[in-house]
Amino acid sequence: MNREATLVKSRHLLGLKGMGKEEIVSILNRAGYWELVPDKLSDRLKGKFVANMFFENSTRTRFSFEVAEKRLGAEVLNFAAAVSSVQKGESIYDTVRTLESMGIDGGVIRLKPIGMLPEIAARVNVPLINAGDGNNEHPTQALLDLYTMRKHFGEIKGLTVSIIGDVKHSRVARSNLWGLTAMGAKVVFCAPEEMRAPELADFAPYVDMEEAIRADVVMMLRVQLERHDRGLLQSAEAYRAAYGLTVEREAKMADHAIIMHPAPVNRGVEIDDELVEHPRSKIFAQMRHGVPIRMAVLERAFG
Amino acid sequence: MNREATLVKSRHLLGLKGMGKEEIVSILNRAGYWELVPDKLSDRLKGKFVANMFFENSTRTRFSFEVAEKRLGAEVLNFAAAVSSVQKGESIYDTVRTLESMGIDGGVIRLKPIGMLPEIAARVNVPLINAGDGNNEHPTQALLDLYTMRKHFGEIKGLTVSIIGDVKHSRVARSNLWGLTAMGAKVVFCAPEEMRAPELADFAPYVDMEEAIRADVVMMLRVQLERHDRGLLQSAEAYRAAYGLTVEREAKMADHAIIMHPAPVNRGVEIDDELVEHPRSKIFAQMRHGVPIRMAVLERAFG
Amino acid sequence: MNREATLVKSRHLLGLKGMGKEEIVSILNRAGYWELVPDKLSDRLKGKFVANMFFENSTRTRFSFEVAEKRLGAEVLNFAAAVSSVQKGESIYDTVRTLESMGIDGGVIRLKPIGMLPEIAARVNVPLINAGDGNNEHPTQALLDLYTMRKHFGEIKGLTVSIIGDVKHSRVARSNLWGLTAMGAKVVFCAPEEMRAPELADFAPYVDMEEAIRADVVMMLRVQLERHDRGLLQSAEAYRAAYGLTVEREAKMADHAIIMHPAPVNRGVEIDDELVEHPRSKIFAQMRHGVPIRMAVLERAFG
Repeated sequence: MNREATLVKSRHLLGLKGMGKEEIVSILNRAGYWELVPDKLSDRLKGKFVANMFFENSTRTRFSFEVAEKRLGAEVLNFAAAVSSVQKGESIYDTVRTLESMGIDGGVIRLKPIGMLPEIAARVNVPLINAGDGNNEHPTQALLDLYTMRKHFGEIKGLTVSIIGDVKHSRVARSNLWGLTAMGAKVVFCAPEEMRAPELADFAPYVDMEEAIRADVVMMLRVQLERHDRGLLQSAEAYRAAYGLTVEREAKMADHAIIMHPAPVNRGVEIDDELVEHPRSKIFAQMRHGVPIRMAVLERAFG
Repeated sequence: MNREATLVKSRHLLGLKGMGKEEIVSILNRAGYWELVPDKLSDRLKGKFVANMFFENSTRTRFSFEVAEKRLGAEVLNFAAAVSSVQKGESIYDTVRTLESMGIDGGVIRLKPIGMLPEIAARVNVPLINAGDGNNEHPTQALLDLYTMRKHFGEIKGLTVSIIGDVKHSRVARSNLWGLTAMGAKVVFCAPEEMRAPELADFAPYVDMEEAIRADVVMMLRVQLERHDRGLLQSAEAYRAAYGLTVEREAKMADHAIIMHPAPVNRGVEIDDELVEHPRSKIFAQMRHGVPIRMAVLERAFG
Repeated sequence: MNREATLVKSRHLLGLKGMGKEEIVSILNRAGYWELVPDKLSDRLKGKFVANMFFENSTRTRFSFEVAEKRLGAEVLNFAAAVSSVQKGESIYDTVRTLESMGIDGGVIRLKPIGMLPEIAARVNVPLINAGDGNNEHPTQALLDLYTMRKHFGEIKGLTVSIIGDVKHSRVARSNLWGLTAMGAKVVFCAPEEMRAPELADFAPYVDMEEAIRADVVMMLRVQLERHDRGLLQSAEAYRAAYGLTVEREAKMADHAIIMHPAPVNRGVEIDDELVEHPRSKIFAQMRHGVPIRMAVLERAFG
């Protein structure tokens, strides 16, 4: 691998694990610039062709990236696996290489198989941005979460953040764990036995709901109903009673504390309907911050 | 709700019910401008982000809006429910709010549930344009129909318009009823018993086919085969014999009368194959007029 | 049909059958210009609206056309049958006419039914480019194959090209047969009995694998598993043993010979994994050449 290739590859964004505080801060700062810039359109990525390659469906994430790409003046091409030749057996790698051959300057990629993304990234010559790979990482989601916390509290260092729900299957939990730890926050998990991730036990303790809801940030995870065996999953009502952020539990939160959720929410399951647009809730602010964060990440990859 | 929000919301286009003649005429006039403008591209909506949110599939309507949006210089983002997290239970409202949070300046929306659109429109701060909501309204379709009639006859006032077919399930019938009535035309319906809409009986009489085909405008509705119980629906052949616009019936139409259909047509069911591109038929003209009408409506919403 | 319409229709690209050497060369030459042009974006088709109408799914071909269209500055609208009203029974012809009515300046079309495309093309007034129609033709694929061969060998005349695999169901085989023959190359086929096309027997002989792999160009076809009856199709292993390009067979190829494949590949079925990115393989070069070829074809259609 020659030096140029190494440089190009350093512009991938595959995850937050191992990323230092300084680099995270530089992304957050640049997002701050994009959040406040008065003109919606820039020509920062004019003439760049960006492919949104979604081998797993997504509304919000693809849309958020597409808005960011278009605000930067890039040419955007969308690909969704459900209407692709992946159905005909083409491997994900071959698809990415194909799009690279056609002249894309980089890609945003979401895929199910865990561990495949670094392999692909090592074999292509354009930057790739991880938009979610299995339960491994979802770095732009965690970055927008960090941005939201920093904007609200002024500083992330010293905060306690509870991540509540299906930690085992959550890429959001993992990316937040790595990012928050790098920034000096304390992470605690709260989850039923079958939704815990044993390999993360060294990095964050599990606490009960009583303690979890006393954190500075109460981050609820979406119950991924589609990812559980029927037998294991408790009913929605039982889940809400045991691990949902109910109106009763919200009343016990600290005055200064905030509610976060990566969305889409299951109203009435992991979070009560009344709390989604509650004054404490940052859920729609998180979505709003996704665009400037992704602009900063795209700029970093292509700049 | 503050004054600014009220102003913004007044730029929604949810339906033609209650819209006055003056406003309809202003839209038709503006469409007349866009139909004749020599340059295909303008920068009227430059820097505006428009989301086409289709929670129900559509080829023609989405395409027509997309052409209109691009001719106005807007940035276009497409969303189709079949590839969205609506599958994962996200509510339509949450999706619209999500896209709003991401910075769209407005949306074109098609959805199945009836009565939901005004609720959503009241809770968001960007203009929404109804591209069809259940069997309730399809205002841009009716506006392009009005445009087509005015262009052909010079004036809509005084025309008799027969709307023939599945009135009960037709948003096109309803929007045309409200728009035509506001413009001073007389509407009559013709439909088998099970396809009648009792709640519209006060606004337009039901007539038999013999009378219906003697109107100035014979507007055939698409038989929505997928919306009927098998038991109720007559066979395609029986439907054609009783309520189809056959070559024999066309021969009895007045010399000056025209044929309309919102498309897509079921050739050989509600209309004979030979009539689709017949000199009397305005079917492809209707589609052509859809683009300038939607340009006028988008400009009204975002201007 | 008036003279203007005739001129417009001459700009369709429906197939290579009957196209002369001079016209093919002019397309290849123009692609050579687009391959080397330094600026990624031009305004050659600025203000033109191009519809990619895919009535059959495709990743690579649609993407390649979309990159080409955007590099030429066109406005691009995508249509995929899976999310269209074709599901509701609208005919392909009506859809194309509908999009034409909405003001598209031309279309790229892929469809399954064989023989329908010339009928449609004769009835519309905008140029259509065939992106694959059943097993009939896929002219831009063959043009990019010709471009790849000419670039490698300097001249196509005098080359022997083996086309190996499911000739019967392959539009790539047919378009290459017509294009290569016009350019003065010799084509031979190699296929199991049930994958032969009797109607092509007069144009190219069938040879065995031993002979096929001694050609200047060894072009492997994708096994279209989805197009065969289960009973007829040999197992993937048996197919590879009898008709696959294995590492062992590659060793017997002439030193100067190249490997081609229209992709997506079935690694380990018609071609061994190790050969896909082998120095002899032009597979990703073919994909790369698809963009300038399609730019030349689009320019020819709309210029």
